[in-house]
Amino acid sequence: MRRLLLISNSTMHGRTYLEHVREALKDHLHGCRSILFVPWALQDHEAYADKAAAAFAELGIRLQSIHREDHALAAIGRADAVFVGGGNTFRLLDRLHTTGAAAAIAARANKGMPYVGSSAGTNVATLSIRTTNDMPIVEPRTFTALGLVPFQINPHYLDADPRSTHMGETREERLRQFHEEHDTPVLGLREGGWLDVRGAAMRLCGSTTARLFCRGEAPRELDPGSDLSFLLSPAPAK
Amino acid sequence: MRRLLLISNSTMHGRTYLEHVREALKDHLHGCRSILFVPWALQDHEAYADKAAAAFAELGIRLQSIHREDHALAAIGRADAVFVGGGNTFRLLDRLHTTGAAAAIAARANKGMPYVGSSAGTNVATLSIRTTNDMPIVEPRTFTALGLVPFQINPHYLDADPRSTHMGETREERLRQFHEEHDTPVLGLREGGWLDVRGAAMRLCGSTTARLFCRGEAPRELDPGSDLSFLLSPAPAK
Repeated sequence: MRRLLLISNSTMHGRTYLEHVREALKDHLHGCRSILFVPWALQDHEAYADKAAAAFAELGIRLQSIHREDHALAAIGRADAVFVGGGNTFRLLDRLHTTGAAAAIAARANKGMPYVGSSAGTNVATLSIRTTNDMPIVEPRTFTALGLVPFQINPHYLDADPRSTHMGETREERLRQFHEEHDTPVLGLREGGWLDVRGAAMRLCGSTTARLFCRGEAPRELDPGSDLSFLLSPAPAK
Repeated sequence: MRRLLLISNSTMHGRTYLEHVREALKDHLHGCRSILFVPWALQDHEAYADKAAAAFAELGIRLQSIHREDHALAAIGRADAVFVGGGNTFRLLDRLHTTGAAAAIAARANKGMPYVGSSAGTNVATLSIRTTNDMPIVEPRTFTALGLVPFQINPHYLDADPRSTHMGETREERLRQFHEEHDTPVLGLREGGWLDVRGAAMRLCGSTTARLFCRGEAPRELDPGSDLSFLLSPAPAK
């Protein structure tokens, strides 16, 4: 049974790393003694792995970072669970593809190995990185991602600031442009929200609503606790 | 002699399309009776071309849109000048490459045909689109752009909002991440600013400072009117 925890953001303003999802992680990783960490979205893998290890140590889970492994694919093969951390989505996806880790993680996650992603790690769990907010500082061989869920997520979803005089596109305008090109639904996950996927069931969790964008429809606000399983069916309900 | 006008944003808050650069356009396009418009960054080419045509009509310049041409490359070959409009940079660059317009425009601009770019049209004039703010809704065959200038631009450059509790990266953090991967200098062009390139000379114009990011150095604020010709040399001054 597929088990995914797809988190909008690793850190809430004023709180510590992963603090707001601690209970969800505890539940999601029940029975896991260790977790394999993928730090590739940031440059400083050592510092990132140390920070993540400290957060998981509080849950009694030993974190091993893939950048310290001689054989990345073998480490994925024996992992109890995988956590893909945030940072730059383009840099992350590039490394996932060039190492073969993308396919290896997807294969294991599709067979039930718990997957945790936050921010960029949530983007890469979806069909593609076409709805990331990140700057394309690295050119990956493809935008196609792990495809653990058959829709797109926009993490750190942000409402327009009515006071702003800045002329860049709002997030909603950007997602409308995405739908000028594609049919795939996009879930805007505000900070503080995450998705809990168990097999064919998916629920919106956290402290805030999410905003669902479907092509040709008005955006819909979804309450915390909403059953979003319909987004997991191959041809999502219109 | 290379003649480029690279504009951060087409529209200032509360003003009409291209109004803030009207005098600069008049000067830059002196002697041009017509301009070829590239509307590919937005979906609705007809509406976009009509809007742009109205702005250029006030300068006495007839605008022809490339999407109405049967032979795009021939139209580029005979153009007095080219204006590449803003929108989504990925969509724009994809179309520029698949049609061959990227190479054709670059060849003419490098021989002195006046080029005007705004926002996405400014991004594609640089070495690559790696410092765009846009969402990667379309996957271009490469991030390499027209290379009319040997550095990167970040249009709509935005200072961090000290009141914000949002945990997404600030613009400055994004550009620092770019320099974790690349050596190329990046000029953050705030809204209201533009670059005037004439041969080997380049000047910062407009109503606001710009922010220059060089790898391993503290960012530098540059005043309007600054001579930025040093950024045009093949190995930019460190």
